[in-house]
Amino acid sequence: MPEMDKSNDFFEENPCPNSLGDVSSLIEDFINLQSNSQNIAFVTSGGTLVPLEQNTVRFIDNFSAGNRGAASAEYFCKSGYSVIFLYRNYSLMPFTRRYEGPWTNLFERSNGSQEKPWIVKQEFQSTVFNALNELDTYTKHHRLIMIPYTTLTEYLWYLKAIAERLQIIASRALFYLAAAVSDFHIPPKELSEHKIQSGSGSNKLEVKMHPVPKFLRFLVDTWAPEASIISFKLETDPSILIDKARVALQRYNHQLVIANLLSTRKRSVAFVTSKTVEWLHLSDDDIVKKVEIEQYIVSRAISLHKERIQEFAKAP
Amino acid sequence: MPEMDKSNDFFEENPCPNSLGDVSSLIEDFINLQSNSQNIAFVTSGGTLVPLEQNTVRFIDNFSAGNRGAASAEYFCKSGYSVIFLYRNYSLMPFTRRYEGPWTNLFERSNGSQEKPWIVKQEFQSTVFNALNELDTYTKHHRLIMIPYTTLTEYLWYLKAIAERLQIIASRALFYLAAAVSDFHIPPKELSEHKIQSGSGSNKLEVKMHPVPKFLRFLVDTWAPEASIISFKLETDPSILIDKARVALQRYNHQLVIANLLSTRKRSVAFVTSKTVEWLHLSDDDIVKKVEIEQYIVSRAISLHKERIQEFAKAP
Repeated sequence: MPEMDKSNDFFEENPCPNSLGDVSSLIEDFINLQSNSQNIAFVTSGGTLVPLEQNTVRFIDNFSAGNRGAASAEYFCKSGYSVIFLYRNYSLMPFTRRYEGPWTNLFERSNGSQEKPWIVKQEFQSTVFNALNELDTYTKHHRLIMIPYTTLTEYLWYLKAIAERLQIIASRALFYLAAAVSDFHIPPKELSEHKIQSGSGSNKLEVKMHPVPKFLRFLVDTWAPEASIISFKLETDPSILIDKARVALQRYNHQLVIANLLSTRKRSVAFVTSKTVEWLHLSDDDIVKKVEIEQYIVSRAISLHKERIQEFAKAP
Repeated sequence: MPEMDKSNDFFEENPCPNSLGDVSSLIEDFINLQSNSQNIAFVTSGGTLVPLEQNTVRFIDNFSAGNRGAASAEYFCKSGYSVIFLYRNYSLMPFTRRYEGPWTNLFERSNGSQEKPWIVKQEFQSTVFNALNELDTYTKHHRLIMIPYTTLTEYLWYLKAIAERLQIIASRALFYLAAAVSDFHIPPKELSEHKIQSGSGSNKLEVKMHPVPKFLRFLVDTWAPEASIISFKLETDPSILIDKARVALQRYNHQLVIANLLSTRKRSVAFVTSKTVEWLHLSDDDIVKKVEIEQYIVSRAISLHKERIQEFAKAP
C-alpha cells in the first residue's frame, strides 16, 4: 500500500482534535501578519502521549522536557525569524524555560507589606522578569505563537494543518522538528475500551503497538514540498546513530538530520546531510561561558535554509 | 511462591534510589518532632512512571494530576493530622494546587515600577498568597512534609521505608493510598538496554509487562500491621467497580477501599468495607458551593481511623 494511503487512513481512524479549526485560524492570522519577506521557523517540541485505553488511565510517553525545542525557538526569534512553536502542554517554553522550578518556589515573604505578602525571590528576579519581558515582546509583535498539544494524534493533525497553512510562504518556511514523536501507537479500533485489568496478579500484560505512518514523507512530498525540513534523531546506542540518520535522509529525502545521543545531547550533535556528516562539540570555553548548543544548531539551520531559498529563487 | 518472597525479589531486582537514606532521615526527624498523641496521615498521590528501556526514552505512565491526594492532604492538615505527602514530582501539591496554570500566566506588567516590572495578577493574588501562607505555616510547624518520587521503583522503596518508620506510632498512623500505581512493569533484566527500534516501518512492537507484586499485602501483614490502611480503586467500567473493591479487601484484609469511576470521581465515591458499600454523592448544593468531595472522604477516613485506634487501646 502506498504511504499516502496510510496517512489518510491514520487521519480517518484518529479523529481531529476539537480545537483544530481554532488552531488553523490562529496560524493563518499569524502568517498574514508577517511581512512579505519574513522567514518562519516551525519548531516542534516535547514528547507525545499515546493512550493505551479508550477511557485513558494508562499511556505511553517519551521523555522530553522540551529544552531543545524551547531554546531553539529563542535563537530563531533572536535571529530575525518568526516562530510557530508547537509544544507538548506543560513542557518548557521559550524564554520562560530559564526558570524551571515549581512556581511555589518562586516566592519569598516580603518584609512588611500586608498587601503583597509574597514577592519573587531576589535570586530569581532578573531571570524571571527578563524572560517575561522577552516572551511578551515577541508574542505581542507577532514574532512568536505557541500552540500546545498533548497526544500523538493532536500533534499529527496540527503538524499537517500548520504545514498546509505554511505553503503560502513556500521556501521561506523552515521545519525544525525537535519533538520526540512516538514511533508506535494503538489504533482506536484495537484500543481496550476500559482500563486494562491486572487480573489475578500472575498474568503478564502484552501490549501490541502498530508503527505510526512516517509523516516526514508526507511533509516532504505533499504538505510542504518547498520548505526546508530538518529532523532530529535521538538514540542511546552510539554504534547505530549515524546510520539511522542516513537511512532517514535516504528514505524521506529532506535536507538535514540532526543526530544526537541521549547522554551527550547537550554538548554534541552531528549534522547529517545526504553527502556529509559533521560533528559539532561544545568547547570547554563554551561550557564555561554556558553557551547552549542550540545557538550553533540554529545558526547552521538558518544557513542551510537561506541557501535553499536562494536555490528556489534561481530556479527557472 | 509466597507473596513475601516476591517483595524481596522486587527490591533485589530494582535497586533503591540514591536518596532513600536522606528521605528516611527526613521522615524519622519529622516523626520525632510530633507530640506523643499526634496522628499522622501518610498520603500518596500522583501516577508512577515505568521505564520501557534502561536508557529510558519511552515509558508507561498513569493519568493523574494528583488533585485527590493534594486536596485530601489539606483536609487532613485542617483536621489536626500531621501529613506525610508522597507525591509524583510536578503533580499537584496541597494548598498551591489551587493555582494550576503555568507560572508564566501568574504575572502581569506593573504600572511604573522599574524594579518590579511584573507582579502577580490581581485576579490570582488572594489564591496564590493564601496558598503560600498555608503551605508555609504547615511545613514550618512540622505538620506537613512532602517527598517527591518519579518512578514506580522509587515509589515502592519510599512506601516501604516510610511505613517502617511509622511503625513507632503504631495505630496512630493512617495510610491513605491515593497514588495511581502501575499494576505492570518490566523487570530490569528484561529491559532493552537501548531505545527500542521502530525498524522498517511495518513491524509491530510487542511490550511484555509483568505484574507488580501486590504491595498492599506487605503493608497490611508486615510493614504497617497496626496502622489503618485505606486504598483507592479507580475503574472506567461501572459494572466491575464494586466487585474489584471487594476482591481487594478480601485479598489484603485492610480497612477500607474508596472506589470511584474516572468520569465521576469528583462527585461520587463508594466506601467499601468488608461488610458494607456506602455511596457518597455531592449534592447540587455542594456543587454550587464548590465543596470538594475530598472533605467528606477525609472526614470518613478519620472516623474509621479513630475507631480503630480505640479498638487497639481497648485490646488486652
